[in-house]
Amino acid sequence: MANSSSILDHIITKPPTFPQDTPITYQWLLPNLRGLENYFACHDAASATSTPQNHEVSIFLAATEAFSQRNTNCSIAESIDRFKPLIATAKARNVPVRAYISVALGCPYEGLNVSPATVTDLALRLLDLGAYEISVADTTGMGTPPSTARLLSTLASAGIRPEQLAFHFHDTYGLALVNTLVALEGGVRTFDSAVAGLGGCPYSPGATGNVATEDLIHCLHGVGMRTGVDLEGMAEVGAWVSNELGKRSESRAGRAVLARKKTSTQDSQ
Amino acid sequence: MANSSSILDHIITKPPTFPQDTPITYQWLLPNLRGLENYFACHDAASATSTPQNHEVSIFLAATEAFSQRNTNCSIAESIDRFKPLIATAKARNVPVRAYISVALGCPYEGLNVSPATVTDLALRLLDLGAYEISVADTTGMGTPPSTARLLSTLASAGIRPEQLAFHFHDTYGLALVNTLVALEGGVRTFDSAVAGLGGCPYSPGATGNVATEDLIHCLHGVGMRTGVDLEGMAEVGAWVSNELGKRSESRAGRAVLARKKTSTQDSQ
Repeated sequence: MANSSSILDHIITKPPTFPQDTPITYQWLLPNLRGLENYFACHDAASATSTPQNHEVSIFLAATEAFSQRNTNCSIAESIDRFKPLIATAKARNVPVRAYISVALGCPYEGLNVSPATVTDLALRLLDLGAYEISVADTTGMGTPPSTARLLSTLASAGIRPEQLAFHFHDTYGLALVNTLVALEGGVRTFDSAVAGLGGCPYSPGATGNVATEDLIHCLHGVGMRTGVDLEGMAEVGAWVSNELGKRSESRAGRAVLARKKTSTQDSQ
Repeated sequence: MANSSSILDHIITKPPTFPQDTPITYQWLLPNLRGLENYFACHDAASATSTPQNHEVSIFLAATEAFSQRNTNCSIAESIDRFKPLIATAKARNVPVRAYISVALGCPYEGLNVSPATVTDLALRLLDLGAYEISVADTTGMGTPPSTARLLSTLASAGIRPEQLAFHFHDTYGLALVNTLVALEGGVRTFDSAVAGLGGCPYSPGATGNVATEDLIHCLHGVGMRTGVDLEGMAEVGAWVSNELGKRSESRAGRAVLARKKTSTQDSQ
């Protein structure tokens, strides 16, 4: 975050444009109170309103001590202490705070030995501090249908409602969509994803990016849900960004939709 | 199949070796009676036994007229007539026959408009002719949990038992494992797959190979089933064959298992 002010400044003063009806929230993943102060300084210099519109800040903690130490160089308890003033300050200016709990279904260092009770305690603590939503992150992609169901049930037993949760799956082992359906059955309706499956995690060996948005959308439409997202349009965005980055899109549905479109265009010629 | 005799001859006289306890069935996908006659001629020239051991022959038909015409140049009814003598001849020599029904959950030409009743009628007909198992193939990968469940229920209503079925998913749109779990819930226990997700279909635009064996195994183990397959060993086979073919393995679980293994080896050094 050392040079983040100029990026913040650029995005706040010249936000990217999207089609008018697209609901966009700008999310700022911040490591500590200083990051939040930088953020507000940029906002205040660029804007006449005191509350940033359609903005939220996010923070992340780990569900295991080993990942917490290696990823953020502090214990879980220390990371909560670190985020307390950040959450309080953001809330005081009416900016919503979203909290991620990393390695909630498997840890590169502690394996599958992640306690649903620990994840649940963390979630309760973060909600109590003022986070509006907890994103339960399967950072390693090691989650399975039974472990996802077990975690959901532990969270529910503690009184956490599905509306307070999001799930954040990585498709590293191919189970992101399977686990998504388990979380859907548990009442969760918010899922994180990344177009073309971009991303990864330097602290999670072999980790791929988030589940591809195109794959998630195709799956949700496949089970009869409405998302309001145009799959073909999303596939085009995924192909474009992958091309810009010189990578193959990691989205199966994205590649398939465009291959099918190309063929039907050729057929009609 | 014009030059198939020499391949047949080679494999029958010099079968590849596998670890002793590995159950292997050699399957011969044959287009017509002539293919079967070639097969038996090779067998008889190379072997003293009248019945090939651990061999089966397989045939394939399509669930839509459009795919049948373009893929096999005949109507569905004509393809059944073509396979009748093949099945009878194979059965007479005690070689089991497996039948594939292609595009059972989506067709490149007729889209999602594939009738579960047509698939069921075909399955009944093929079982009646003597096929021991029907592999229901989602050639295009267009199947969804609801369409898979609907097809399973139509097959069950006609009296076809899950033990008479296999499912054959392609992961073209990323739903192969999701659909596998639906079929598992319907009682099916036989699934086709290909190591590293090899394969494809020239008549199904954008089609990728079968669902990767490594992904399927990881998923089945993830839901607590036993397969008897060593996932890490399978991942190594997938990496080896992909390297030989100069392709990236299409198996997410395969790549992840090997990346994790590599890192833990480095950690321990």
